[in-house]
Amino acid sequence: MADLQNLRLKKNEERRIKQGHMWVFSNEVDTQVTPLKAFEPGQQVVVEASNGKALGLAYVNPNSLICARVFSRDTKHQLGMTFFKKRLQQAQALRELNYDQPYYRLAFGESDGLPGLVIDRFNDVFVAQITTAGMEACKDDVLQVLINLYHPRAVVWRNDTASRDIEGLERYQALAYGELPEQVELVENGVRFIVPGLGGQKTGWFYDHRSGRARCAELVKDKRVLDVFSYLGGWGVLAAVAGAREVACVDASEAALDGVHLNAELNGVADKVTSYQGNAFEVLTALAQQAEKFDVVIVDPPAFIKRKKDFKAGSEGYRRVNELAMRLVEPNGVLVSASCSHHMPRATLISQVQAAASHLDRTVTLFDQAGQAPDHPIHPAIPETEYLKTLFFRVSPKW
Amino acid sequence: MADLQNLRLKKNEERRIKQGHMWVFSNEVDTQVTPLKAFEPGQQVVVEASNGKALGLAYVNPNSLICARVFSRDTKHQLGMTFFKKRLQQAQALRELNYDQPYYRLAFGESDGLPGLVIDRFNDVFVAQITTAGMEACKDDVLQVLINLYHPRAVVWRNDTASRDIEGLERYQALAYGELPEQVELVENGVRFIVPGLGGQKTGWFYDHRSGRARCAELVKDKRVLDVFSYLGGWGVLAAVAGAREVACVDASEAALDGVHLNAELNGVADKVTSYQGNAFEVLTALAQQAEKFDVVIVDPPAFIKRKKDFKAGSEGYRRVNELAMRLVEPNGVLVSASCSHHMPRATLISQVQAAASHLDRTVTLFDQAGQAPDHPIHPAIPETEYLKTLFFRVSPKW
Repeated sequence: MADLQNLRLKKNEERRIKQGHMWVFSNEVDTQVTPLKAFEPGQQVVVEASNGKALGLAYVNPNSLICARVFSRDTKHQLGMTFFKKRLQQAQALRELNYDQPYYRLAFGESDGLPGLVIDRFNDVFVAQITTAGMEACKDDVLQVLINLYHPRAVVWRNDTASRDIEGLERYQALAYGELPEQVELVENGVRFIVPGLGGQKTGWFYDHRSGRARCAELVKDKRVLDVFSYLGGWGVLAAVAGAREVACVDASEAALDGVHLNAELNGVADKVTSYQGNAFEVLTALAQQAEKFDVVIVDPPAFIKRKKDFKAGSEGYRRVNELAMRLVEPNGVLVSASCSHHMPRATLISQVQAAASHLDRTVTLFDQAGQAPDHPIHPAIPETEYLKTLFFRVSPKW
Repeated sequence: MADLQNLRLKKNEERRIKQGHMWVFSNEVDTQVTPLKAFEPGQQVVVEASNGKALGLAYVNPNSLICARVFSRDTKHQLGMTFFKKRLQQAQALRELNYDQPYYRLAFGESDGLPGLVIDRFNDVFVAQITTAGMEACKDDVLQVLINLYHPRAVVWRNDTASRDIEGLERYQALAYGELPEQVELVENGVRFIVPGLGGQKTGWFYDHRSGRARCAELVKDKRVLDVFSYLGGWGVLAAVAGAREVACVDASEAALDGVHLNAELNGVADKVTSYQGNAFEVLTALAQQAEKFDVVIVDPPAFIKRKKDFKAGSEGYRRVNELAMRLVEPNGVLVSASCSHHMPRATLISQVQAAASHLDRTVTLFDQAGQAPDHPIHPAIPETEYLKTLFFRVSPKW
């Protein structure tokens, strides 16, 4: 590419990229040959091995530890409307392979060949999130392609994640296009939900749990269910619709619980759904003091481990909350335990639940597992794209 | 327990047992205090920590590296009909939580608190497998409890696994009770299958893939499907019933492929199902030479890694067979890749498929995963009880 500068890697640092990973760390760059300071944040470059062989195209941010993200192996495919159209169509095809209705995460960053870009689709409303300077530079192209492909009613930028600070980007929310309807609705596992178009958590909804929720729904007929960290009721309201006798949702946010009741109403199960507002640890403790019991308890906390250095405290947090929850499970009932922390390995979550069981003199049997839904695909060369695990335990008196 | 001898562990060797694991290795026993030679194969003992505190009951085999297996934490619960009745009822309850029909693995060894015992249920026909001397000593009790609980039509012993040699047990197959019907039938994912009552692979059927097969069935409508290592058509015949346009099954065994055609017939899809008999590596190579393409290719090989020392060769085998299969996948088609080797970590299987993709200049996207079905539960303190992983990849031209 005559018109793009090169970014030269040090010797042997091309290996991970060649194996399919998309991230270049700043210490892997041969800054003698190509000083990082010479690049603007967001600038497109040709990444080359130490022998000068081109590996693909990337965009650079000299201020970030991940100083470049590869977006194409073919040096002809620069970022632009053609590129985004192709990638989004490819992403959409994968969603349509898995889902009948247009409610899903349309783009999941690196896994869809779109580093720094996430787009959630609520039929004709699109909520997009940009996390890197390279993608921010393409904002207008991304928007235009969304308009061309989907003729959307509204496109929203939820560019307000903490990770933008590292990239030197301001945080903001904005309506990018169209008119935001008063209520944004989605259908998941056959159940209707209203989500905040702006102002909710993350992009407004957590589509990543769809498979786990569907599995859970098969277990709740005639049961008493507790949904801890419920947010808008993705687990709990579905459980009520799936035939649960009674559902209680726990969340710290009053707005979230208002959402739960609204969604329960919308699906004709308002009479079965109650809620407890408060800190989950405190609410669970209080419920145990009242000797409350549930047949199925779902624990789906926010990420307790955001950075590797939080591992110890976060891991202990998972043990504690699962132990509190386990005390509320009826004999031979079910504990559904989720973690969305990439830095919490599945094996560690399993052993923390087992530790809680040992401590409480229970026997737990891990009978099923779910991961992130198909609209949050994993890039097989980028372990960082896998983060969600949901474990289904039967909780029995000790054998 | 006045009537049971003790098995004394060395200092600090009680930790794993206390955390819930059920295996005692011979080097963990304080043989000064309790020489292993003093025990008969299969003898019940009280396992105690170095300080003499009882940890639970186990059965011993002085000839095995796993010299004792704990079966109860409560020293009152010796092996016997009461014990087996309780454990089987507990196991059955977990299956009934997950399944409507009596076709499942009723008992999965350690995970169901029944070390050394596996029982597959085909409605009123039970195929049981004993792998340890301790369980062999209880054969009559197990049989009697099965008779009392289920009034079976037949109970078969498939006591012919290689692991019995280590335990000093002979290998045999036998009809233990009742009369074996000419055809043993099961229903899985709504599809009927006939399995060999005796003489098939393992216990005759692989119920462990039920969840993965169900997921696969959602992806095959109007597609051309290849089922490699098909055995009796668990994936392929289901795919045909689920709307696949055409299904080809590959297996080395002519008897297995006869079973495929029989099962296809039984479900009214005989016209859509063809087969190739032969070594899978050779058949896949030949299909590639003929430029055959399939929308969905399923690769579900037997365990390539039976012992840890086979890891390198086995892992390479998974890469090779997945690469051969990937060459047959239509652009943007699906590769379903399974491994039932406990010693093949999921992460390694993912990277071997990625390696194959890099080699073939393809981009693979891991969009879903399945594990062993709920009737093959995992004991959270015994990682050895987890072995099955199924990965769903989209295979695209290189981005």
